[in-house]
Formats: sequence, C-alpha cells, structure tokens
Amino acid sequence: MTSTTPDVFAWLDTRSQARSRAGLTRSLRPRAADAAALDLASNDYLGLTRDPRVTEAAAAAARRWGAGATGSRLVTGSTELHAELEHELAEHCGAEAALVFSSGFLANLGALTALSGPGTLIVTDAHNHASLIDGCRLSRAEAAEAGHRDPAAVARLLAERVKKRALVVTDSVFSVDGDLAPLPELADACRAHGAALIVDDAHGLGVLGEGGQGGVHAAGLAGAADVVVTTTLSKSLGSQGGAVLGSRRVIAHLVDTARGFIFDTGLAPACVGGALAALRVLRAEPELAGRARGVARELAGRLGAAGFAVSSPSAAVVSVRAPSPAEAVEWAGRCRADGVAVGCFRPPSVPDQVSRLRLTARADLAAADLGRAVEVITRNAPAAARRER
Amino acid sequence: MTSTTPDVFAWLDTRSQARSRAGLTRSLRPRAADAAALDLASNDYLGLTRDPRVTEAAAAAARRWGAGATGSRLVTGSTELHAELEHELAEHCGAEAALVFSSGFLANLGALTALSGPGTLIVTDAHNHASLIDGCRLSRAEAAEAGHRDPAAVARLLAERVKKRALVVTDSVFSVDGDLAPLPELADACRAHGAALIVDDAHGLGVLGEGGQGGVHAAGLAGAADVVVTTTLSKSLGSQGGAVLGSRRVIAHLVDTARGFIFDTGLAPACVGGALAALRVLRAEPELAGRARGVARELAGRLGAAGFAVSSPSAAVVSVRAPSPAEAVEWAGRCRADGVAVGCFRPPSVPDQVSRLRLTARADLAAADLGRAVEVITRNAPAAARRER
Ligand SMILES: Cc1ncc(COP(=O)(O)O)c(C=O)c1O
Ligand SMILES: Cc1ncc(COP(=O)(O)O)c(C=O)c1O
Repeated sequence: MTSTTPDVFAWLDTRSQARSRAGLTRSLRPRAADAAALDLASNDYLGLTRDPRVTEAAAAAARRWGAGATGSRLVTGSTELHAELEHELAEHCGAEAALVFSSGFLANLGALTALSGPGTLIVTDAHNHASLIDGCRLSRAEAAEAGHRDPAAVARLLAERVKKRALVVTDSVFSVDGDLAPLPELADACRAHGAALIVDDAHGLGVLGEGGQGGVHAAGLAGAADVVVTTTLSKSLGSQGGAVLGSRRVIAHLVDTARGFIFDTGLAPACVGGALAALRVLRAEPELAGRARGVARELAGRLGAAGFAVSSPSAAVVSVRAPSPAEAVEWAGRCRADGVAVGCFRPPSVPDQVSRLRLTARADLAAADLGRAVEVITRNAPAAARRER
Repeated sequence: MTSTTPDVFAWLDTRSQARSRAGLTRSLRPRAADAAALDLASNDYLGLTRDPRVTEAAAAAARRWGAGATGSRLVTGSTELHAELEHELAEHCGAEAALVFSSGFLANLGALTALSGPGTLIVTDAHNHASLIDGCRLSRAEAAEAGHRDPAAVARLLAERVKKRALVVTDSVFSVDGDLAPLPELADACRAHGAALIVDDAHGLGVLGEGGQGGVHAAGLAGAADVVVTTTLSKSLGSQGGAVLGSRRVIAHLVDTARGFIFDTGLAPACVGGALAALRVLRAEPELAGRARGVARELAGRLGAAGFAVSSPSAAVVSVRAPSPAEAVEWAGRCRADGVAVGCFRPPSVPDQVSRLRLTARADLAAADLGRAVEVITRNAPAAARRER
C-alpha cells in the first residue's frame, strides 16, 4: 500500500477492538501430532479418526486414486469409491440414495437451496447449526423461526403460511448442547400441513439408534419419501465431507441443481476411503454407538454430582454452563494446561448468549480417562460455575 | 410414505421433465482407478494429483495425524501441518498470511461474507464463479454487476455508489473460458474509489507468474494491503481445500468472524499434506507453471488450425465452442468413448448460454498426447462446430 492508497480495511481494527473488549477474540492453537491431551473437545465420537483401519484406508485411497478428486463430481471428480460410499451410507441409514459433498456445510447449503427457493417457507429451529441458517439465507426462501424444539409452533407457522411449499429444517442433535429434536412430532406436523422435513443428522449418525444409524432412523423415519437427511463424514466417521440422503428423486434433483455440488471439487479420495472404512467398522461393531452414549451419560452424571449445571445427554455431547465468556475461556484454558482438552463455546457460537464448556464423549474413553477428566474439570472450575444450576 | 401422506416433492418431477426436455439432465459417471482415458477435463494443471511425492505425503499425513481434523479449526481441528501449509502458501504467493478452509467454495463464502455486509457495495464480474456469486448473496451486501472484464464500468459503479464501503470481486482466470481479469486496471479503479479488491485465483495459482505464484502476483499486486486473494488446493495443488491470503489483519478478522471457517470441520490432514507436498514440488520445479501454459497454447493453436472457434489461452484452460447443449454433450461423449476425457459446459454452468468443450492443459502432457487429443476431438466434432467461428 503506498501512502496515497486509502486504508480500505481500517474498519477491521474497530471491529477487532470491540471483540477484544467483549472477550470474543479467537486464536488458532495448532496441535502437535503427538499431543498428549485427553480429548473431550473433538467430534470423534467413536474414536475412529486415528484407528489404523481408518487411517490405512485413507492412505490407501490417496495412493490408489490420487490426492484429490481433480474436478467437479460432474466432470472428473466421481470415482467408484465415491459411489461405493454413497451406496453403503444409504444402506446404513435406510435411505434410498445418498450424495457425497466436500463438507457437511456445503451439503446443507446444497440441500436447502435446491429444495426451496422464493416460493417456499422454511420453518427453522432457533438452535439450528450455522450452515442450516446460511442455507436458508442463500435459498431466498421466506424463513420463520419456531423457537426451540417446539412442534406446536412449527405446526402453527405451517398452517398460517401463504407460500405453497414448505420445509421444516432442524438439527437432530443440537450441536452445542446435544439435546434432541422431537423428530416424530415434527414429521407429524409436516404431514398434517404438506411440508417436507429436512434433518441435519451430523451429530446423530454413528451415535443414535441401535447401531448408530442416526437420529432419523431411530425416530422411525428412515426412508420416508418426505424426509431428507443431511449429515457429515467428519464426526463419527472420523474423516471429512458431507452427504445428503433421500429418495432417488431428491438425489437426482441435487445432482442437477445443487450449486455447492456442481461447482465444487469432489471430496478427496483419502476422505472418501477413510469415511467408508469407519462406516464399515461401525457396521461390524454396532455396539460403538451405545458405548458413546453411555460414556456421555456417565460423564454428565459425575459432573452433575459435583455440582455443575450439566445437560442430560441423549447423544454424545455434554454441555456444562459457565458463568461468563471470559470465565469459560479461562476454565477451558486451565483444563487444557492440565492435559484435558474441552470445548469452550461462547457468543456468537451459541444460540442463547450462554457460554459453556462443551464436552464430547468418545466410545473409546476408559473409566480412568473419565475420572481424570472430571477431576481436572472440577479442580479448575470458577467458583460461580457450581452456583449456576 | 403412506397413502395419506401428501407427495411434497411432486414438483421435482415437473422440474426434472423440463430439464430433460432442454437436454440439461446431468448424470454421475464414476471412474475406475485404472481408467485409461487421456485426461483433458480435470483441473490437475500440473499433473501432481497422482504424483507419488504428493500421494505419499497425503498417505503419511493420514497416518500421522488421523483421517480427519476432528473438529472446527478453532477447537481441535488445527494441526501444526495446517499452520505449515498456511505459512508456505503465504510465502509462495507473497502474502502476509493465509488461512486454510475445507474448500475453495467455502473460502469464497467466508471471505465475502466476513469482509462485506449490508453496508457494502460489491461490484462483480458477470463471469464470476458460482461460489463468488453465492458469497455475494449470502453477505447481504448490495451487489452490482459490471459486465465482463470491464474496469471502466467497475470505476463507474464505484463512483456512483451510495454505500460507504465497497469491494470489487473477480476471478483472476475465469473458470469456463480461461480468460484473464484485467487486475492492474481493477486495482487502479479500486484505489481511485476507496474500494478493496478480492481476487479468486483458483485457476491462477500454479499456472500464472514465473513460478506459478498466481495471477495476483503476476499482476504485481502480491502483498498489497487492499487486495485479498482466495484460492483452492484442489486444482494445481492436486488435493482438496481452499485458502484466503491477505494481511494479518484480514486473516485475524476471518478467524473471528467467517462462518464457513468457524462452523466447519478443519481440512483433513491428508488433504493438507497432499497440498503442501504439491506446493513444494512446484517451488522446486517452478518451470511447471510455464509448461502448463505452453501446452494450453499449443492445444489451442492446433484446434484453431483445424477450424474450431477456440479461445486464446493465457492460463491452462482452452474453450471450444459447440453449436448446442445437446451437440456439446454428444461431442464430449464420443471423445470419451474414444479415450479422451474432455469437459462439457452448458447452461446453467456457463455465463453466456453458450455450450462448449472445456479442455485443460497439464504440465505433464506429452506431444503424442496432444496429437491424439486433437485427432479425437476433430474426428468427433459436429459439423457445425467448425462453422462457429
Ligand atoms: C449440526 C452440524 N451440521 C453441519 C456441520 C458441518 O459439517 P462439516 O464440518 O462436515 O462441514 C456441523 C459441524 O461442523 C454441525 O455441527
Ligand atoms: C474460480 C473457482 N473458484 C472456486 C472454486 C471452488 O473451489 P473448490 O472446488 O476447492 O471448492 C472453483 C472450482 O471448483 C473455481 O473454479
């Protein structure tokens, strides 16, 4: 920039100072490959990300197919490996068909934009994931928020609508607190009012249902022609990427029209291979799903007994209230210094302005790990955290 | 779906029939690992996707770091490998800092939404990539299109604006035809009118500039405080993922506010490792960039001599006009059947309703490959393709 060039980004400094005053500045903390911390912060619910069966499959796929997909799925970016993953994922979840995207984020944008538009009302849950919110915005549909987990409000908005078409959109497991959407009631509301239901099962796949078939399957809605499921390969399946599951008709429509599918490079073979291997581990060991849920309940039970305001987990996410953003950050930082990695969520990454620790259970956490985690979290807690209940 | 459930997706059939009548139905053709086709369709401009130095690095990264990043870059998803790639990519492109996203698509959404907003005018090129268009939509900024490659129109729109802040957004190499944006003139217009310039260098990185430092570097704008560059790891770098390059101030702002960064799982280690290895190959063999451009010029020259309406390539993309969408699809299909994979772009994936073959040069294409490609493309051409000029 020469001295005569205007400083077009000066406004960033003002914003940065405001965030800094509010305690909302974020920083990246790259981890080492051999980092010893006990991980209660990732979304690796089944502990498969570093499982040799999964990493070796990822490595083999990179060698066999190349480091990248080389183009859009519609040009050169579809390999037989992508087709295999789509087939097995659909089968596992009880859907007619599946379509793999390069991320869960783009799967949500793709599904929402392709299945709605200005002639559609989208009814959303107030705690929906950011990618669903952005999908609504991008779709140019009319959006109406129905509070949190409130099927009666959903039904009311559907009944009152002017638009001909309607979609109801919800997380199955809400990402911050781990609470569940009332899927059967939402499906009833949709069916009573001629609306389709789109469920983001990112935190349900691999965790909910007997063998981890996900929240939609557990709710008895698998394969329903009026339900579309989006999910991610980056949590229970230990890899990267996203997918949409639905009827063949819906999937064909996405292939023809979803911009985040058509105008994006296909998912890298290593990610496809890793996710496929993880899916096969899960199908061979269906008990992993129940184990992740059991660890979460155990963790929440012990922290509740220690006096914290803890969620009652139905999936693998455990949320613990913190008194303030600053105390949440300090609390998480002290835990990390003591070798226990915990998530710290605060505005604007929370739906309700409440800061909290976000802990995740993993199917492979041992009893000793849990004991250590509870001890470290308790010892480092701000005094007010126990009075939050 | 029970017999009483309304068929909420019946409208998809109507749409599907309309696309079918217009010859716009797409289908996935998964390729085999040992597919023998000569590839003129991918974006693997440097031929590094299957280079053992790149695939072995991807495989090693999956083994060492896991098949996935396990969480958001802000929670557990940043590894030292991500930091290394960001450092070397910034250095290569002459930028102060870089931030890796899980795709180029999300890098564009993140950069545009975080750097604009309702108080901003975004001036766009009519041929911009879909992810830039979606980024504008998502940002809620006012958008104004300035035709194609028209700095005077850009200056006019900036001068007439009511909004205080303004961004000018353009591809460096337009993805469909491979033509170049007039970056120096756009930067002048921006500086005269207090606007920032955002350049998507997806098809420039690895191809433009002496050593493939990209279109922004080649235009003498590398490191400029008022220029932000977005790019992808999925084309010349043979992997998957995207990045934003800019001043430390801009990158810090994205870490704090870009939703497609904050609310997305970090790029998988295999993709990071693959892209880093490809970048190192490019830096060790800077002549690769010029070679890709030379192959493109040679290919275009020969096809022009054969009578087709061919672009004059400055980068690695060669575009050949086809008489209609249906004839483009048939032409590409016949080439594929004869062992030469070519891209076929038609509405809505083209900016101007003109269907074409999109051919890509690769640094590693031999003279014999080129001869075969030209022979197959010529032999399979619809008669009207030579009269299109
Ligand atoms: C509920 C939910 N949906 C979608 C996503 C996006 O998935 P991905 O990280 O694979 O892009 C996430 C988290 O990242 C999520 O928590
Ligand atoms: C100009 C341009 N920008 C962005 C993208 C998106 O990059 P990615 O495929 O890495 O998401 C592409 C192509 O895919 C592109 O051609």
